[in-house]
Amino acid sequence: MLIVQKFGGTSVGDLDRISEVADRVCRAKKNGNDIIVVVSAMSGETNKLIEYAEHFSKTPSAKEMDMLLSSGERVTSALLALALEARGHDSISMSGRKAGIYTDDIHANARISNIDTANLKKSLKEGKIVVVAGFQGVNSFGDVSTLGRGGSDLSAVAIAGAMGADLCEIYTDVDGVYTTDPRVERRAKKIDKISYDEMLEFASLGAKVLQNRSVEMAKKLNVNLVTRSSFNENEGTLITKEENIMEEPIVSGIALDKNQARVTLRDVKDEPGIAANVFSTLAEKNINVDMIIQNVGQDGTANLGFTVPENELGIAKKIMQELNAAADLEFDSNVVKVSIVGVGMRSHSGVASRAFTTLADNNINIEMISTSEIKISMIVDEKYGELAVRSLHEAYNLHQRDEL
Amino acid sequence: MLIVQKFGGTSVGDLDRISEVADRVCRAKKNGNDIIVVVSAMSGETNKLIEYAEHFSKTPSAKEMDMLLSSGERVTSALLALALEARGHDSISMSGRKAGIYTDDIHANARISNIDTANLKKSLKEGKIVVVAGFQGVNSFGDVSTLGRGGSDLSAVAIAGAMGADLCEIYTDVDGVYTTDPRVERRAKKIDKISYDEMLEFASLGAKVLQNRSVEMAKKLNVNLVTRSSFNENEGTLITKEENIMEEPIVSGIALDKNQARVTLRDVKDEPGIAANVFSTLAEKNINVDMIIQNVGQDGTANLGFTVPENELGIAKKIMQELNAAADLEFDSNVVKVSIVGVGMRSHSGVASRAFTTLADNNINIEMISTSEIKISMIVDEKYGELAVRSLHEAYNLHQRDEL
Repeated sequence: MLIVQKFGGTSVGDLDRISEVADRVCRAKKNGNDIIVVVSAMSGETNKLIEYAEHFSKTPSAKEMDMLLSSGERVTSALLALALEARGHDSISMSGRKAGIYTDDIHANARISNIDTANLKKSLKEGKIVVVAGFQGVNSFGDVSTLGRGGSDLSAVAIAGAMGADLCEIYTDVDGVYTTDPRVERRAKKIDKISYDEMLEFASLGAKVLQNRSVEMAKKLNVNLVTRSSFNENEGTLITKEENIMEEPIVSGIALDKNQARVTLRDVKDEPGIAANVFSTLAEKNINVDMIIQNVGQDGTANLGFTVPENELGIAKKIMQELNAAADLEFDSNVVKVSIVGVGMRSHSGVASRAFTTLADNNINIEMISTSEIKISMIVDEKYGELAVRSLHEAYNLHQRDEL
Repeated sequence: MLIVQKFGGTSVGDLDRISEVADRVCRAKKNGNDIIVVVSAMSGETNKLIEYAEHFSKTPSAKEMDMLLSSGERVTSALLALALEARGHDSISMSGRKAGIYTDDIHANARISNIDTANLKKSLKEGKIVVVAGFQGVNSFGDVSTLGRGGSDLSAVAIAGAMGADLCEIYTDVDGVYTTDPRVERRAKKIDKISYDEMLEFASLGAKVLQNRSVEMAKKLNVNLVTRSSFNENEGTLITKEENIMEEPIVSGIALDKNQARVTLRDVKDEPGIAANVFSTLAEKNINVDMIIQNVGQDGTANLGFTVPENELGIAKKIMQELNAAADLEFDSNVVKVSIVGVGMRSHSGVASRAFTTLADNNINIEMISTSEIKISMIVDEKYGELAVRSLHEAYNLHQRDEL
């Protein structure tokens, strides 16, 4: 098998951790696999470099930041290659450039445009373990570019896709994806397999295991993605095509997103352009609007509701007041979003009604509802967030979920 | 003018020092000059990375060490570019690769093979201050290579040569080259101008301002080299062609090298091949032999003497005993080398005799003597080292040396 293994910042947080990673990589190699490792900067390094840069400039150029920040991953890649050599394995570190990762010309948030696998293939053929500095590529000017948040995951997934790897393992400090946050519901169970789409809903709902960009790329390139812990030997969660999952449960898990604030505009005149005006103005100011609900009343006025991240409520408030779009404005930051995710919903009726009944039984008022094919999201009072998660987890029997 | 300015580790030792360097670079730019800056890693960074590597391997591969160590200079170059931008100057950092520094394929101690100045020229033409990561280049495999000790100086001199720069300023934490070590003779004076050849003798004699490789390259490429301090505004020492120095003093300075040990072989059979055997064996073991003296006596035996660095005496001793080259072996680590350097010696007789007279007047016995066109070196008992320097400094009136 060809396996791409990606180790994040905490997994290579210090020299001892790098040694443990080296041991793990060696085991995978000894099992007869070809291995490409992708590494992040040692935890703390990137922040240190950012602080250094901020010493000189509050608005450092993205190009120079890329030169600066890309060095952290280079260091880790060389150190891991040395650790592998010391364990008797022929190994080679590669910068993003050497690994053939080409990007567009947007510094700090570059997109991978293509991967030239020649050097990777050559080194694998020579029996080497290849260690690639993640988070970076090279642009059309020949300058180093970085891939933005979760960039090393992207490097790994893109390489796995381009190389047709059998598996792309993303190692972090958590065991995988859970049916819900174990700190909220300690009976939460690790999910063994989940579809790309479900994972995308989970990630956007606040599960911090993987950035959506990586999952989207894995889906596009058909990469079998595993998220697992580098701190133990537990099997992780496989994120794969729906077809690869034999028996989908109706509901995969419950997500809780506390970083929500609700804005309600009452008595908005129901005429074209008002909602468009509201949301285009918010977009201009880079406010991330999440759920949007509009109800039209019989008197020709409407109630318009939407949610924004809690820390953006202040700006959203100011914009709404300036727009004067409605007679009655209401802002509430004491809300959370509880979401039920599962591809099985598509073919099973009654999933939503069970959620509503469950919350009603617990006297939890639902302030907003929005649904997609594989997700139901509900805004509830902050103080009921955990209770909502636990009761829904119970209602869908997630703690009794069979191993698939 | 086009000026190449190189700042070493202590000059960029922390963020405040980098700010001061940025201010200095800006002043040079504002005076109407084109500036290329070459930077080392922040002091301590390279040693930290070496320690990291040694955590994994006592014999790390040179290729991976190059990947690892080259990151320090990249960081400094990006930080300085940011600091220059913050001061309103258009600036760009360049890795060795981007700066067009091509090397041979010897990792850890690569030699610069040629410099492609296209990117440097383009950026200067755009009015930018170019900041180059020193100590590194790119080899024929497209891999990063490092230039060994004093590598950033080499980067600067090579760039100055390739670009036909008017001046190459090497900034360190000392003011320049002195007539002797000011800690030994506080009346030592800074030398304003010195020829390449004198500087080469000084450097090999223990003056730690510049590595010989850099001076040799400056001589070859005809680069006007200035060594000066980044901690003050004092003029430094210009190292240039002899023709550029109008009035050479007879003696430029006195050097003291304490890292010397003397080996004497007495009653060596005076037959061909014995000396050759001794020195080829030492060379095989990488022992750096410095002075060599041989006297042939009338009885067909010879005395052979040479010096080695003090820390290599142990191995030299072992080799000599194994070779059994002489009946009588003597080893002495309590010696120092005092040297008088000056191109004026060539045309002035009596320089050597004044030295011998001066030491005799002070009851200092000379154990070995070796001379070149512009240098007289003498091995004396360690305890007389400082006295020898001070009395010679006085004898040649170096403290009264006129400003040239």
